[in-house]
Parts: sequence; C-alpha cells; structure tokens
Amino acid sequence: MNNQKLSQIIDFLVEIDKLKEIYRTTLLLDGSRQENDAEHMWHMAIAAMVLQGYSNHKRLDIVRVLKMALLHDVVELDTGDTHPYGNNSLEEKLKKEKQAAQRIFGMLPDDLAKEFTELWNEYENCKTPESKFAQALDSFMPILHNYKTKGRQWQRLNVTAEQVLSRNKRIKEGSNELWDFINTIMLDAVEKKYLTK
Amino acid sequence: MNNQKLSQIIDFLVEIDKLKEIYRTTLLLDGSRQENDAEHMWHMAIAAMVLQGYSNHKRLDIVRVLKMALLHDVVELDTGDTHPYGNNSLEEKLKKEKQAAQRIFGMLPDDLAKEFTELWNEYENCKTPESKFAQALDSFMPILHNYKTKGRQWQRLNVTAEQVLSRNKRIKEGSNELWDFINTIMLDAVEKKYLTK
Repeated sequence: MNNQKLSQIIDFLVEIDKLKEIYRTTLLLDGSRQENDAEHMWHMAIAAMVLQGYSNHKRLDIVRVLKMALLHDVVELDTGDTHPYGNNSLEEKLKKEKQAAQRIFGMLPDDLAKEFTELWNEYENCKTPESKFAQALDSFMPILHNYKTKGRQWQRLNVTAEQVLSRNKRIKEGSNELWDFINTIMLDAVEKKYLTK
Repeated sequence: MNNQKLSQIIDFLVEIDKLKEIYRTTLLLDGSRQENDAEHMWHMAIAAMVLQGYSNHKRLDIVRVLKMALLHDVVELDTGDTHPYGNNSLEEKLKKEKQAAQRIFGMLPDDLAKEFTELWNEYENCKTPESKFAQALDSFMPILHNYKTKGRQWQRLNVTAEQVLSRNKRIKEGSNELWDFINTIMLDAVEKKYLTK
C-alpha cells in the first residue's frame, strides 16, 4: 500500500466534509432550513440519473455528468455560496473559484488532482453536452425548491419571474424540455403570487 | 414532452429530499452534529471516486458504484437509520427495506424504477465487485468519522474495537488495502483510548 497517497486522499475526504456546513440560499423542500452544498450535490446527481432522458443530447456520458454534479460546488469550501441574483463581480468570483479548485483538488495525488480539475473546468466552461446538462440541473433544482416552498426565498431577495427566467436561461442549452417545464411553473408561480412578474 | 412521466420524476425528487433530514449515528468530522443520509451518500460517492484504485477488483464499472452509493440508503426514508451495533432482527430489517424500495423506486416511471431496484438489489446482495466495493466504503466512512471525532459515538454506544472490526469485516471483501488501513487506525484508536480493545 502506498501510504502517502492514501493519506493524501483521506485528508481530502476530511477536508470536503466541511461542505456539509456550507449553506445555500435554497430551502429544503419542507421549508425547515437552508440546504447545504453536500445535500445539493447529492440531489443534483440523482436528478441527473432520473432526468437524463430530457437532455438535448441523447448520448450523454453519464459518469462525467455524475462526477461534475458531485464536485461542482467543492470550491465553495473557500468561496462560500453566492446566489445568482446578487451583484458580485463575475470575474472576481471566477478568480477565487479557480484558486479554490487549485488548493482543494491539489490536495489529491497527481492523477486524481488532474482528473478533478479537468472535470471542474469542463463544468465551468460549459461547452460539452455533459456540462451543459449538468449546469441545466444546477439551475433547475433551486427553481423547483423555490416553487415548492411557495417562493419564500424569491420574496426575501425581491426577485421577479422575469429575473428568474433571465438568470437561468442556460437550462435551455442543456434541456429544452426542462426549460419548457420551468416556464410553465413560473407562470403558475406568478399566478399564485409566489413572486411578481 | 411526456408530462405524466416528468411529473412522476419530479414527485420522486421531492420525496427523496426528506433524506436530508434522516440523521445517522455518525457525527460530522468537526463533531458538531450528526450527519444525514443525503450528506453520507454524497461523501461516499466521492470516496468511490478517490478510492477506486484500492478496490480488490481493478476493473470496476465506476458508474454502477456511484449510482449504488447515491441510492443505497434511500430506503431509510421509510425505515430510518439503524446503526450496525444494535440488536435489530436482520430479517425484519431487510423485509422493511424491500417494502421501502418498492414504494419509493415505484414512484418512478417503469424503466427507472426497474433500474434503481436492480441497483439496490445488487448492492444488498453484495456479490459483484462493484457492490462489494460500495459496501466496503459504506463501512469505511463511519469508522473514519468515528476515529477523527475521537470515538465519541463508539463510547456512547459502548462499542469495543473488536466489535468494530468484526461488524465491518466486509471491508476486506471490497478492499484489502482499506481493511489494512482500518486495522491500523483501530490499533491507534485503542492506544489513544477512543474505545476499549
């Protein structure tokens, strides 16, 4: 057994445990508290499994989608969560996230560090069918949560339905069908006064 | 878009959100609170990615390992968590879990329900290299957590090192190297008085 390599891997597993305490804007579906990053990444990976058939690209390499789903928010260990309706500088955010990816994935042995960095870059660059679908799910899930919790976080952040659709239009790149579904529930959300038009 | 099928899938995604509130015996690595099932399944899936090289079988179908990791505790929605040091009837436990799998995976369209049931059965039967490795990780992670939190839950449950090793020997079926590692840290745990021999 290569003890040094295993010890690096264990240190990485210990480090990322902290993602269970990084809380997102999104509420659990019962509205009881905010969801954390570990829970979100698990739920998104399951969403990838059950919604795969709705991807615009029918031949997805699902293992890459799952790995991207499981890893995409690991950088928030260092940067914290930022919700999509803030006024943060995108450039500054990306710079910090790149540094975080370097530090955190850099804890791993070289081959794994390389694989994880490439997966995270693929996700961020959003050019492949797999990353487009993964990003679509990352937008889809919080909208579903907001809708099911009657728009509590939309109201708190003063977000309009127009803003939700405009900030999350990347869903269409990954799945036209999920985009249609989101448009339908947003109409319903406005009608039910979960948020304004 | 087949709306009925999508609506079944959404109902399933909503239902399994409750796993974020099913708490396990295991503590977070900072000891601040118990871990929930969603967090555990995410962490275990990442463990599969980084520890794959330590599997006894070198040619694993990693996508099946990941899917089993992400789904294996979904039945606890209905059964709750049971820790491995209790005196529950194994037969009764398995019967309840089978009923839970039927109900929860049965919410999905037929093709997905079939796939998830098969994955869950494969995991439970523990005959394939993929399920042996997944089960090894399911035992490995709580021991790591207990060790890193100085044995607090071992002490609370009055568990000895001998019991830990005896109840978790399935690790060896999935990975001799991880089994050696566990034996090493258990010796250290006894020396540090995290638990008795």
